[in-house]
Amino acid sequence: MLSELLLTEMTRLAKKDNMPLHRQLYEALRRAMLDGNLGAGERLPSSRELTTDLKLSRNTVVSALNQLGVEGYLVSRVGSGTYVNDNLPKPQARKRSSHVAAHTADLSRRGTALSSTFCSSQLEMQPFTPGIADFSAFPVALWQRLQNKHWRMTYPEMLDYSHSGGYAPLRRAVADYLRVFRSVPLDVDQVIITSGTQQSLELCSQLLADHGDTVWMEDPAYWGAANVFIATGLQRHPVAVDQEGMAPGPQDETVPPRLIYTTPSHQYPTGAVMSLVRRQQILSIARTHKAWILEDDYDSEFRFSGPPLSSLAGLDKEERVLYLGSFSKVLYPGLKLGYLVVPKRLAAAFKQAHYDLNRPGQMPMQAALAEFIELGYFASALRKARASYAQRRQSLLEALQPCLGDQAQITGAEQGLHLCMRLPSHVDDRALTQRIADHGLTVRPLSAYCLRRTDARGLVIGYGYAALADIERYGPVLAQVIGNELKRLGKAHSAA
Amino acid sequence: MLSELLLTEMTRLAKKDNMPLHRQLYEALRRAMLDGNLGAGERLPSSRELTTDLKLSRNTVVSALNQLGVEGYLVSRVGSGTYVNDNLPKPQARKRSSHVAAHTADLSRRGTALSSTFCSSQLEMQPFTPGIADFSAFPVALWQRLQNKHWRMTYPEMLDYSHSGGYAPLRRAVADYLRVFRSVPLDVDQVIITSGTQQSLELCSQLLADHGDTVWMEDPAYWGAANVFIATGLQRHPVAVDQEGMAPGPQDETVPPRLIYTTPSHQYPTGAVMSLVRRQQILSIARTHKAWILEDDYDSEFRFSGPPLSSLAGLDKEERVLYLGSFSKVLYPGLKLGYLVVPKRLAAAFKQAHYDLNRPGQMPMQAALAEFIELGYFASALRKARASYAQRRQSLLEALQPCLGDQAQITGAEQGLHLCMRLPSHVDDRALTQRIADHGLTVRPLSAYCLRRTDARGLVIGYGYAALADIERYGPVLAQVIGNELKRLGKAHSAA
Repeated sequence: MLSELLLTEMTRLAKKDNMPLHRQLYEALRRAMLDGNLGAGERLPSSRELTTDLKLSRNTVVSALNQLGVEGYLVSRVGSGTYVNDNLPKPQARKRSSHVAAHTADLSRRGTALSSTFCSSQLEMQPFTPGIADFSAFPVALWQRLQNKHWRMTYPEMLDYSHSGGYAPLRRAVADYLRVFRSVPLDVDQVIITSGTQQSLELCSQLLADHGDTVWMEDPAYWGAANVFIATGLQRHPVAVDQEGMAPGPQDETVPPRLIYTTPSHQYPTGAVMSLVRRQQILSIARTHKAWILEDDYDSEFRFSGPPLSSLAGLDKEERVLYLGSFSKVLYPGLKLGYLVVPKRLAAAFKQAHYDLNRPGQMPMQAALAEFIELGYFASALRKARASYAQRRQSLLEALQPCLGDQAQITGAEQGLHLCMRLPSHVDDRALTQRIADHGLTVRPLSAYCLRRTDARGLVIGYGYAALADIERYGPVLAQVIGNELKRLGKAHSAA
Repeated sequence: MLSELLLTEMTRLAKKDNMPLHRQLYEALRRAMLDGNLGAGERLPSSRELTTDLKLSRNTVVSALNQLGVEGYLVSRVGSGTYVNDNLPKPQARKRSSHVAAHTADLSRRGTALSSTFCSSQLEMQPFTPGIADFSAFPVALWQRLQNKHWRMTYPEMLDYSHSGGYAPLRRAVADYLRVFRSVPLDVDQVIITSGTQQSLELCSQLLADHGDTVWMEDPAYWGAANVFIATGLQRHPVAVDQEGMAPGPQDETVPPRLIYTTPSHQYPTGAVMSLVRRQQILSIARTHKAWILEDDYDSEFRFSGPPLSSLAGLDKEERVLYLGSFSKVLYPGLKLGYLVVPKRLAAAFKQAHYDLNRPGQMPMQAALAEFIELGYFASALRKARASYAQRRQSLLEALQPCLGDQAQITGAEQGLHLCMRLPSHVDDRALTQRIADHGLTVRPLSAYCLRRTDARGLVIGYGYAALADIERYGPVLAQVIGNELKRLGKAHSAA
């Protein structure tokens, strides 16, 4: 009975959209729960039973069930199976404008701004979602062994908050890594372990800028950073981006910055690499205005062609650059460990405020990570990941080839986990993204990353999370939807 | 040679201050490193050798070495022993005014404010430091077993960020606990797992208040909360505290609040319990001004006499209370997991902004914690802790008895992990704290918690971290220093 219902729904979904099987099963189960065909508290058939009844692979079934577990639809009870949650989550609104509008009176102005950001509702992990790495390959067993070792050796102090900028051996490992691979000249004293880039950015905004101060941001830019600047009360001044990266002009200098947030190695999301001339210019502007540069080096670990680029921090003679990095792309996002390198004269104040504001912890995990790096596992994970991403990137580039041409060009594919497809300014990239979503695939419209400019159109396409097989399978679908749209627009254009 | 040097220094320290042995060794080793008698990179004698040479217990040696490891003075190399760190940390300035002054030009105004807070430099864990629980009793092996189980079962989604307010079973466990033990009527949908109270407070400030809005705070109050309000740009309006807790008067209502931050179960740090009349008053004020109440229930798990108090959130008919709790006192601080319960109509906006701003993670740890609660380990850890803290509290009260009287009274000892000794307003409680520190003991001056009032003098004394034996040993020392000071002041007073 249930299996029939699920099969009917899955067939419907398969016809309507070209959706992966695990996604079809996920949707069918979710719908059964929301429609009451699977009641709250009801016991689900086992994954083995579902595998047999639905004639699906076990992986497909497990993947769908896991996703429903994480989202709170299903709960496991020890020794007795999987049940529909008594408190079913409400179905997430596709567009959030409805619920935000209802609560604007309750929220503050910044609260309203923070809860109406674009993009954040589209949280599903799917082959082409940008900004996600493939952490399915993470060596869980090894990681568990290292963690166990440090838990066994642990002494009370390790269970406390971390008082001095993080676990000392981890800070040393980060310093060693950055000195060698990113040419960042630094002392271990300047390294602060944070819970990731969001926390690093927040700390910089709070300690170095006041409410109403100006932060220069690249336009388009990483929307996660924009959120932090909204939350900390900064005025975001958009600076154009061209093929040499952030491109400040004289008109920008009439709005002098207190902070300059930039992604010089691989501009997010266009992928532009900042030229040396531009780097010198940004440093000189910072010097003139006594501004601080926040260099977000979010994916420099994954460079596919040419020598690694040295960092802006490495060029900085006056110690005006703060350097931000994270472990979430090489290890896994939920790890919540990243680092911030600050100029020497700021180190004491940053460590203290970091402690006072955030009470950092997780020392056994920091110890495991330190050893993961020291024993070479980090370097080897990186090597493997780089090789694997290079393949996926190649496969994606090949799949997209048919729709490239005058109208569509790829930028920024030399590094990282995403590429940017630039489209003509008359393309509605949000509508195109929706059309692609109808096929069960997630990409992001370039215009959604823009602060002020209205001419930038395109798609930001990730290949970090996609398995090679998925890229080979869905890449052509993606190319076809894009190609059709360009053809349709081309005709409309010439008819007009 | 080294052992002689250490013994000489330890003898000097023992004469000068009544310092615990592990602290003497810590200081002697630290001094040897800073003076260059133990050079950077040099190998240390093993803890066994030090135990023999210095005729100390192994616990004493290990405790001193561990502390130096955590602070980054020493590093362990796999299989080869303990070495002096190549990058020795600079000795921490006792008073931070020096380094802050030097960098004021670099920091923003709020950065300067955040890095000049009192108290935060005194981070050492010592018997009487308030605000710390005894996590040495935490069942590390059991915890490791639960973590391992969830790491073994883990699937990729568990390594990702947490999208919907936290791991669903943990949110359910928290909801069940709060419904039963704190009479908080709630739906699991209202629970958001955060990295602790600091993050919960920050989220509330950002989403519910704008820069320049007023937050009412108890005076005296928890300085960690004050820091968050500074960082988020709120105006702190101090409201007096009496024996019935927060006591707003007509003059306060001329500065209408947007947020009201309060600790009704056990006012921090005076320990006052908010009366029912006062609770109704606070709720009514919130209603009138459409303000939000942030109820920080930081230690309600540890109540020693009388029935548990119900929460303010439990009395709230209009859904204006946000309820904050943390696991750091029952488990361990570095765990970095806490919870925030928000009114239903705010749940969607809070979950989304929490994700956008903080990218929460640590799902395998959240899963282990959910099971820790579900299987009853949390309740049993709580029972054990409560019994153990009750003993310590009793021992501390007995030790302090000799110095109590007209001049010194204890308040707030019915709950939690600290008590407050009120002293006459002519006592310089900061100087007294320093005198106590000269004996190697840390307490905090009540005046350091005050925002505006100048009459509150006293000592905030913790018994959460102290072992019973330490309380029995150092409690009388503490009482004697306080008693001497009161006598001295009494004489000076009557002579004047």
